[in-house]
Formats: sequence, structure tokens, C-alpha cells
Amino acid sequence: MGELARIGVSLEQDLLNWFDDAITKKNYTNRSEAIRDIIRDHMVAEEIDKNKVVVGTLTVIYDHHRRNLTEKLIEAQHRAGGRVLATTHVHLDHHNCLEVVIMKGRGSDLRNLADGMLSLRGVKHGQLVVTSTGKDLK
Amino acid sequence: MGELARIGVSLEQDLLNWFDDAITKKNYTNRSEAIRDIIRDHMVAEEIDKNKVVVGTLTVIYDHHRRNLTEKLIEAQHRAGGRVLATTHVHLDHHNCLEVVIMKGRGSDLRNLADGMLSLRGVKHGQLVVTSTGKDLK
Amino acid sequence: MGELARIGVSLEQDLLNWFDDAITKKNYTNRSEAIRDIIRDHMVAEEIDKNKVVVGTLTVIYDHHRRNLTEKLIEAQHRAGGRVLATTHVHLDHHNCLEVVIMKGRGSDLRNLADGMLSLRGVKHGQLVVTSTGKDLK
Amino acid sequence: MGELARIGVSLEQDLLNWFDDAITKKNYTNRSEAIRDIIRDHMVAEEIDKNKVVVGTLTVIYDHHRRNLTEKLIEAQHRAGGRVLATTHVHLDHHNCLEVVIMKGRGSDLRNLADGMLSLRGVKHGQLVVTSTGKDLK
Repeated sequence: MGELARIGVSLEQDLLNWFDDAITKKNYTNRSEAIRDIIRDHMVAEEIDKNKVVVGTLTVIYDHHRRNLTEKLIEAQHRAGGRVLATTHVHLDHHNCLEVVIMKGRGSDLRNLADGMLSLRGVKHGQLVVTSTGKDLK
Repeated sequence: MGELARIGVSLEQDLLNWFDDAITKKNYTNRSEAIRDIIRDHMVAEEIDKNKVVVGTLTVIYDHHRRNLTEKLIEAQHRAGGRVLATTHVHLDHHNCLEVVIMKGRGSDLRNLADGMLSLRGVKHGQLVVTSTGKDLK
Repeated sequence: MGELARIGVSLEQDLLNWFDDAITKKNYTNRSEAIRDIIRDHMVAEEIDKNKVVVGTLTVIYDHHRRNLTEKLIEAQHRAGGRVLATTHVHLDHHNCLEVVIMKGRGSDLRNLADGMLSLRGVKHGQLVVTSTGKDLK
Repeated sequence: MGELARIGVSLEQDLLNWFDDAITKKNYTNRSEAIRDIIRDHMVAEEIDKNKVVVGTLTVIYDHHRRNLTEKLIEAQHRAGGRVLATTHVHLDHHNCLEVVIMKGRGSDLRNLADGMLSLRGVKHGQLVVTSTGKDLK
């Protein structure tokens, strides 16, 4: 965690009241923690912009009855050269599967990997989120 | 502006250094102002969520050679029942026009107005941004 | 999958060329599949808007040395009343853990669950993505 | 507009029904126009990504009673080296002004210009949208 600093922030009383309400609704018990989280959000956005090594989670929904789709997804992951860290599979119903693919690498590489899986026929929907590896995130 | 409050925020020295760099790049001369702006961003998001009266700016790019398009855009604005406050037009090149339509109303109504204009043939692209009227924005 | 329909779409040759290039870069081998995926994106956005039952994946990065944090995360998941389907954990480095929490429920409930975990001290960053259960996704 | 092409798209009947409903709600009278618009959205995203010359609209809300703010905004616009095409001003209420600044230039330059105005004290909120100049938008 490292050394703590303490700063003073001046703001309108009305704005502060609104902020306190808003963070209470989000379960924060502590103003400083809420402000730190907001700052870290901006740090992560910068890491992604600069194409640093990041962690990505691809969530896909697909129909496992589609012929060969499972094999194609596994193949895509194996071709990823070690960028796939883990995969979790959930059976949503008789047809629909959810698969979460956790990856680590440059943002642009993760985007390509995701595109390769999302473009497969039978993959109904998917979304990639990218976040920090935490290493440079204070 | 109203009464000022002053709060203390504790955060890791590294995180603070990053924050100071980041806001300097964005031209802030003052930490408090940067934090106030971040909080106001969240307030505006809430106003929009709650479908309060907001201000919206629709930016459209269109080809004014397309027959009747200019008339249809004007008609759409007149049917808007007083929600269109002002319109600015810029001639981008021989073909392309940019028009900015400034509107005020419930978020959902502004969305509908924007859809009505964006769906016209010859409108190449457009985007609506919605922000606060400033009234409840401390 | 259901019955197939076939529609004709007319568009400028230049626009079509751009589209074909763009989807090839994204690995699509088939125009229809690319257009179906775009339409499904919009369907999912509507399911989320209408607060239907959806699937969400929360990705959090945290420092497992933070006292009691692991316990608090597990508690939050257990209090979720069956909405947490599975959790995957990856050790990123000596300090940083990644945890992916797969959930199913109304969008607003998943948002609350996510907020409860993201507001914990020691959780450095996180992001929730919400997608369809696939059931109503043609 | 250029030469027209005609392509066939096959998709599930259910998906097509949903699509037809969705575009009708958005006022489209024509499927092809809706699909063209979706494709153009993706083209604009690419133009922005590649830092091409684009058009941007900055919408700011500010309190014109704040000392010197109006002058500072005008100064920032004059320093912009011809990138500001036009500005429209609306008096929202006794305190609050809305100003829309229409700009043309590389995306990164427009971002910087916007940051310079958004960071001024008294500017309560603002948002930049960036779109195509229409020139390369088929």
C-alpha cells in the first residue's frame, strides 16, 4: 500500500451532501476510499490507452448445440500463446452456455483474441472488459 | 455557489502523485476543482438516469443535396413543441453540413427527437449528448 | 435457431467495401453473421434497459494481503441469494488477485451486488459487464 | 452518393422481427437505411480511432456570474488556431449558460481544447462528442 498522504479538498456544502448520499448508496463507509476508487478508475483508463499489459475478461454466450463451436472456441484459446489464464463455464439452460475467458496481455492483443471468438458462428453475444493487472495500481 | 465545506482525504502518496500529474495534463491548476468536476460528472449521470429535465445537444452530419432533407429536419424541429432552443449550422464542404440542435426536456423525449432526425435518409451520422441544465448542479 | 429469413439490403458500393474490410479484420467469414451480431448487440442493450433477467460478470482486482478482504468478498457473495453462479480466481502476482464473479438476476440487483464488492477497502478496481442469458436472443 | 450495391442477408425470422420492431420505434421507414446507419457508426468510430480530422461539439454548462469566466472561455477559443468553427450560446436561467463550441481538427487536438475549457473554474459540466466531417463517410 505504501505511505499515506493527506490532502484537503474544498467544495460546496450542497455538492458534498450529494456526494455523501451517493457513496452511501454504493455501500462506501468512507469518503477517502470512494475518492481513491474514482482516481483508480482514471488510472486504469490510462493503462488501457497506453496499451500496457492488462487483464481482460471476455464473457460469451453461445449455443453449445452449434456443431464444432466448442472445439473452435478451445482452439482459439490454445492459439492465444499463453494469454488465456483461465476459463469458467456455466450451463445457463438446455441450449445456452456462458463462458468467461480470463486473459492477460497488451490491450490490442486481447481485443484481437476476443474478436476471433466473437466472430464465430453460434456465439450469440459477448463482451470484453479490460482492467489493470493491479501491479501499477496504487 | 453556496457555502464551502472542507474535507480531508487520505490516500497513498503514489496515487496522489499520479492524480496530480493527470490533472495537470488536463490543465487543472487546482486539485479541489478537479475533484468537484468528477463529482459533478456523477451527479449529471444521475439526473439523466432519473429522466429529469436536461439539456441535450444533437450533432448531425448530412448531405444538403439530398432532396427535401433540410425541410424535413426543420419540420422535425418545429414539431418538437418548444424543446428546440437553438440550432447552429456549419458548411463543412460542398456536400456536407453539420447541424447542432440544442434541446431542453426530459431525457427520453430528447432521445425520441434525436431518433426522428437521425433516421432521415441523407443524415450520415449524428450523436446526442445530454447534460444538466445546471440548475441542480451545485 | 429457428426458421431463416432472407432480406435484401441496398447500400453504396463504397460503404459495402468498407464494411467487408472491417468485418474481415474482425475475423468474420460471412457478412450475414456480422450483421446478425450487430443486431443482437442492440437486442442485449434493450434487455438490459428493461431490467430483464440477465447474466453479469464482475471482474475485480484486489490485494489479498488486505486483512479480512477475502472473507468479506465471500460473505457478499453468499448474501447474494443464489445470484452468484460461479467464481474464478487467478493469482496475478504476489499481491494482486483477480476474481471473476458470474451472476444471474435483474440488472439492477447485479449492479447492487457489484457495488457492494467494489466499495470494499482493498478492492483496487473492478468492472461489471452485463449480457443476455441467451434465452430470448435469437 | 455513388453507385448502389445490393446484398442478401440471411437471418433468423425471430431476429428479423425484433429488428423491424426496433427500427420502427426509431422512426426508420426502411431497413436498408437502418443498416447503413449502423455501418456508418462503425466507420466514424474508426476515423476517430485513427486520429483523422474530425468534427467535435463541446457542450458546456457554466455560471456566467463567475468572474472572468466568459473572457477565459473566449480566450481559449481564440488560442485554438482556427479549430473553432462556431459557437452558440443559450441562456438557461439567471445563472446558467449553455455554450456549444463546434470544432474541426485531429481528435487529439479537439480533446485538448475541450480539456482546457472544462478545467476552468465555474464550468460545471461539459461533454465533447466527436463525429466525422462526412467527407469519407459514404
